[in-house]
Amino acid sequence: MKTYLECLPCIMNQSLRTARLASDNEEVIRQILVNVGASLNEVNMETPPPQSTMFLYQEVSKISGVSDPYFQIKQDNIKEALALYPELKEIVEKSANPLLTAVRIAIAGNVIDLGMNKHFDIRQDVYTILNQQFGIDDFDKFEHELSKANTILYLGDNSGESVFDKILIEQMNKKVYYAVREVPIINDVTIKEAIDSGLGEVSEIISSGCIAPATLLNQCNEAFLTLFDQADLIISKGQGNYEGLSDSSRSVFFLLKAKCPIIAKDLNVLENDIVLKAINVH
Amino acid sequence: MKTYLECLPCIMNQSLRTARLASDNEEVIRQILVNVGASLNEVNMETPPPQSTMFLYQEVSKISGVSDPYFQIKQDNIKEALALYPELKEIVEKSANPLLTAVRIAIAGNVIDLGMNKHFDIRQDVYTILNQQFGIDDFDKFEHELSKANTILYLGDNSGESVFDKILIEQMNKKVYYAVREVPIINDVTIKEAIDSGLGEVSEIISSGCIAPATLLNQCNEAFLTLFDQADLIISKGQGNYEGLSDSSRSVFFLLKAKCPIIAKDLNVLENDIVLKAINVH
Repeated sequence: MKTYLECLPCIMNQSLRTARLASDNEEVIRQILVNVGASLNEVNMETPPPQSTMFLYQEVSKISGVSDPYFQIKQDNIKEALALYPELKEIVEKSANPLLTAVRIAIAGNVIDLGMNKHFDIRQDVYTILNQQFGIDDFDKFEHELSKANTILYLGDNSGESVFDKILIEQMNKKVYYAVREVPIINDVTIKEAIDSGLGEVSEIISSGCIAPATLLNQCNEAFLTLFDQADLIISKGQGNYEGLSDSSRSVFFLLKAKCPIIAKDLNVLENDIVLKAINVH
Repeated sequence: MKTYLECLPCIMNQSLRTARLASDNEEVIRQILVNVGASLNEVNMETPPPQSTMFLYQEVSKISGVSDPYFQIKQDNIKEALALYPELKEIVEKSANPLLTAVRIAIAGNVIDLGMNKHFDIRQDVYTILNQQFGIDDFDKFEHELSKANTILYLGDNSGESVFDKILIEQMNKKVYYAVREVPIINDVTIKEAIDSGLGEVSEIISSGCIAPATLLNQCNEAFLTLFDQADLIISKGQGNYEGLSDSSRSVFFLLKAKCPIIAKDLNVLENDIVLKAINVH
């Protein structure tokens, strides 16, 4: 997916939000906004938004001196998700279609997205999404491909959402590699947050090598690229991974909630629709 | 009111919105956004937002070659408001307190604000606001001052809203000077739109001299400043005029709907509250 004009004002919104977490010095924040604004000319509109916009997070860290502004929020979201975990497990176990329910729960976890400026109530959103109609529903394909798969590459997205991913991983009961970002970026899951979420108990946690809030193959390390090539099934969570991989020639299952109007448009769904979209699956 | 950090991303949002009206050439729009972004460093945070941000509209016009991107929208909004006029007049005439009802209708007209990215349904909003509780309610002061006043300076805001202003002006039945912007800026009312709204029948239309979407005394012409000094009562419509005059030492009655979170905070009301606020009235 390419960068849209709408992404340019959004860069400024994200800059302000992140800068406010990194600093309470108004002049520092102003300087971040001014620097980011002056760099808009260098935004490459032909690359996916997570690549073209990640400079803003680097600018925030450089000027504020804070490398991980979302550290505490990530910890809080994981804690909140872990508190919900037993209840969610019970919902899956008691449901008529546990795999579908686990998929819905994994998508529900995607509401925990602090790159977006939306309010969310995790518990309430889970119950909404358990009954929400899909904007794109490739569940049958997913179930079919899953039945044949031995190894799964699972692309993590946000911290907290990662606990919801654990539920789907447990339900699938396969060999899973859980890929995370190389460095802290927004509230995305890194190795630390994956471990804190309990993913080490059910999967092999690996870094994709990406420093952007997405899976961008040109940033990925060799080990990841080998898995990306050879895994029987790839599950990609969230908008950032979709933006990076929507034009891939590899078969991928995207699980996400379309929170951004531009991504919703790209997917041809309505804003806030839930999506299970297969690409290159025949 | 000074410029807040939140105004900087909002400058980019407004730039995109206005640029899309002025052009459908993606590269022209991108260039506008890039230029505006590069100018954020020159935004004077100590001046009111309409002053510090008006350069964006000039940039849109300069690069797109379109001096009045909202021309058609202004005409459409006036037409829609004029169609509602007979119904609104009847509501005022039949109400228990026609002056208060006319005030509410004038505030309801303030939902027609294209500087803000809010959807609105004029008719529905009128009926909501007719029954909505005020965030700030200085109606008693207003009624008292009005009873003593002979000349009123009425500061117009948006085109279309101007038709609603006519209803309040008719109800007050005093000598009214209706002040408008010197040049087209966003959808603000200029002499043309004031005439199209029928305000020439009930008031003397004057230009304030302002080229910003506000009343900024340092931009106003001599004739306006004399009226500003000598009028018995000043009614200021909308957010832009409030931003420009909130620190004035003159007595002013502000009628607006608080659509911007920063202005709502400055007024100490909730977003979307309706406001009739008196300053320097004893």
